[in-house]
Amino acid sequence: MAGKVLPRAVWCLLLVLVSCHAYKYKTYFMTQRVDHFSFANDDTFLQRFLISDEHWDKNGGPIFFYAGNEGDITLFAENTGFMWDIAPEFKAMVVFGEHRYYGISEPYGNRSLTVPKYSGYLTSEQALEDYVALISYLRFVIEGAQTSPVIVFGGSYGGMLAAWFRIKYPHIVQGAIAASAPVRQFTDFTPLINTVTANDEGLAWLSKTWKLCKPLKSKADVKTLKDYLMDVWTNLAMVDYPYPANFLAPLPAYPVKVVCSHLTDSSLDGKDLLEELFAGLTVYFNYTGESKCLDADQQADARLDDQGWDFQSCTEMVMPFCYDGVKDFFEPAPWDFQDYSANCQKTWGVIPRTYMVPLMYGGWSFKAASNIVFSNGLLDPWSTGGVLWNVSQSVVAVIIPEGAHHLDLRSANPADPPSVVEARRLEKAHITKWIQEFKQLKE
Amino acid sequence: MAGKVLPRAVWCLLLVLVSCHAYKYKTYFMTQRVDHFSFANDDTFLQRFLISDEHWDKNGGPIFFYAGNEGDITLFAENTGFMWDIAPEFKAMVVFGEHRYYGISEPYGNRSLTVPKYSGYLTSEQALEDYVALISYLRFVIEGAQTSPVIVFGGSYGGMLAAWFRIKYPHIVQGAIAASAPVRQFTDFTPLINTVTANDEGLAWLSKTWKLCKPLKSKADVKTLKDYLMDVWTNLAMVDYPYPANFLAPLPAYPVKVVCSHLTDSSLDGKDLLEELFAGLTVYFNYTGESKCLDADQQADARLDDQGWDFQSCTEMVMPFCYDGVKDFFEPAPWDFQDYSANCQKTWGVIPRTYMVPLMYGGWSFKAASNIVFSNGLLDPWSTGGVLWNVSQSVVAVIIPEGAHHLDLRSANPADPPSVVEARRLEKAHITKWIQEFKQLKE
Repeated sequence: MAGKVLPRAVWCLLLVLVSCHAYKYKTYFMTQRVDHFSFANDDTFLQRFLISDEHWDKNGGPIFFYAGNEGDITLFAENTGFMWDIAPEFKAMVVFGEHRYYGISEPYGNRSLTVPKYSGYLTSEQALEDYVALISYLRFVIEGAQTSPVIVFGGSYGGMLAAWFRIKYPHIVQGAIAASAPVRQFTDFTPLINTVTANDEGLAWLSKTWKLCKPLKSKADVKTLKDYLMDVWTNLAMVDYPYPANFLAPLPAYPVKVVCSHLTDSSLDGKDLLEELFAGLTVYFNYTGESKCLDADQQADARLDDQGWDFQSCTEMVMPFCYDGVKDFFEPAPWDFQDYSANCQKTWGVIPRTYMVPLMYGGWSFKAASNIVFSNGLLDPWSTGGVLWNVSQSVVAVIIPEGAHHLDLRSANPADPPSVVEARRLEKAHITKWIQEFKQLKE
Repeated sequence: MAGKVLPRAVWCLLLVLVSCHAYKYKTYFMTQRVDHFSFANDDTFLQRFLISDEHWDKNGGPIFFYAGNEGDITLFAENTGFMWDIAPEFKAMVVFGEHRYYGISEPYGNRSLTVPKYSGYLTSEQALEDYVALISYLRFVIEGAQTSPVIVFGGSYGGMLAAWFRIKYPHIVQGAIAASAPVRQFTDFTPLINTVTANDEGLAWLSKTWKLCKPLKSKADVKTLKDYLMDVWTNLAMVDYPYPANFLAPLPAYPVKVVCSHLTDSSLDGKDLLEELFAGLTVYFNYTGESKCLDADQQADARLDDQGWDFQSCTEMVMPFCYDGVKDFFEPAPWDFQDYSANCQKTWGVIPRTYMVPLMYGGWSFKAASNIVFSNGLLDPWSTGGVLWNVSQSVVAVIIPEGAHHLDLRSANPADPPSVVEARRLEKAHITKWIQEFKQLKE
């Protein structure tokens, strides 16, 4: 189950290999409409996309398309090794499309997320239409691509996009690998920090002990720190990969184990516990030893755009979260839509549309869909929001008990547990079938 | 094949029955977003819908929903007798949704079609989202409707909407009856009128002989008259029903035959031919004997909105038409998109998006769809643009050789040819199957 313990030097070498941008692609831009669904706004913008045709069969070989999600597309190109690994045997062209409003595909430059007049076109529907236009354009202009089957890949929100792409546009994409595509749930944290930081002395103590870049001055600072911790725990579980990797942060193999190794003494309490917690935290924020202090304002990877996702959470990606401190280890917090909505109005000038996604894409009812693999790793906290059972013969669930957040989309690795090897084998078998069906249809 | 000849009095009685608004319904309004796909425009408007629950099984009986097309929804309620005929045996609720920008469902009042800022939201995608919201609302507020299966019906553009509704939202509607849903083609007319109206004497002669409300003064007037004639021939073929009806105009049974009975002498030429043609035309514009003159500016039925449809043709409903005067009897006119687009920009301030519909809905590739009946009458000129063969076991074609434009959606009539009786039987069988499948899924 767990990876074999390798000498530290080997890990480091692996870490370098994984993070050294080994994949070669060309970068292009395509003019896209800001509004695909109406005729009231004629604005256009440039969408970035990456292409590698190194292994492509120029006579109708398949196109592997990654449906970019909330971040710089190069991040996903570097962390979706599965597509690169299998492109040669499928003789596939590999294409990564950047999601509008992320990376450098900003419709209105640095005004893009200021007011609804500009930000309002950041929706999954518009993003999917960008991908439809992009793929149609590629099929039109690239000689030999006219009859290419297209398989769409995506992880996390990108996995939702991949599944929705096939559901809404089965005439454009022939099948979807939707890895770790969730539809709900999140997290919060314990009252210990509240107790310690109830007075100025505690605030100062924690700021110093935890080497905070910005000392705690107020309740708001404490809230920011707790939010950061929530993200850390969630992120750690998401990227609990069996080998060192650098997706959300540079981390050792099975980072949850490494972090928890500092938290084995259940007799610890108060400041002692917080000190040990910090030792664990260091694994996350300073595995490379290069961080001088803990910056609670910093996001996981600068290429993941928290701003854009926050806007999406305030518009259509409304996922009700609640914590009870019993079934989870976070502070109790019931779901309060009124409060949530008020914050969205204050921050973004928008009112969330709670039912937009389930009405648009069908929530749990995928009976009428076809050709989708929903994969989920059970180490991943998001898996509780995933599709964990077969819906039909062609809409299937692949479970990876030892897998973290879309581990299957990553490059093959000697430390991979057998379950992810099997998951990838199943996914390849489905891709082969989709391509064959499409070719038979064309004949 | 042809209807039995009945005494004129019987026809008139039937005509009265058909046109006297025999169906009872209540009228409601629902607040809808102008823009369902983005967050840049918060405007809302009132959409009209009609409901009859006279025969509805209040414990989960099905909802029969008509996807309103380009006109006042009451027109479609009165001319879709099939839904009313079969509602009792299915214990169905009958709902007619008015299409945005038609009838009285105008988002911006009388400014709605002025400039793209207001008109730009008249698209099929937005209209379908109105229907999604409306059906979800009904299921939510009407006690007993929470688990009601929904079958969507539509004719012509409404038929396209019905099919697309099932394709895009299979989690909302369980099946679609898409009658006479075309995707291409139109028409133009012979050079005789050009010859006769080449001088002022001819213009005056034709104006008098054809009893034109507005005498011909210019080439533009002649163009208007020819466009009117093109519509007449097309409309006559569309409503070539086996009994008197009042859909596009009050007409006798098999009006094409009646009109053509004036055009049997192939030796006629020049003005003689135009005189006889007028006798035939009279059947169309003055079957009731109440018209004092021929108004070439008048549209078929004031409740069908030519303005709105013209806008839609200039945006996403781009159907390339060409005539060669050989395979058709119209003036040769090749398809000229440049010219077409220039006219759209001049009239509406918009540039047509040629590939919007095929990219959005899939054109001919309905392999991934399910639960759709595409019906077509072969007397209908639009049938050439319809789906005339079975796509799969659940996406099927129903052909009505003796049928005009969505004859099957009309009320049963003693003069119905057997083929339409059989078509309705098949449609009912499919509806029954869809409802059963849905109930099994829920159990």
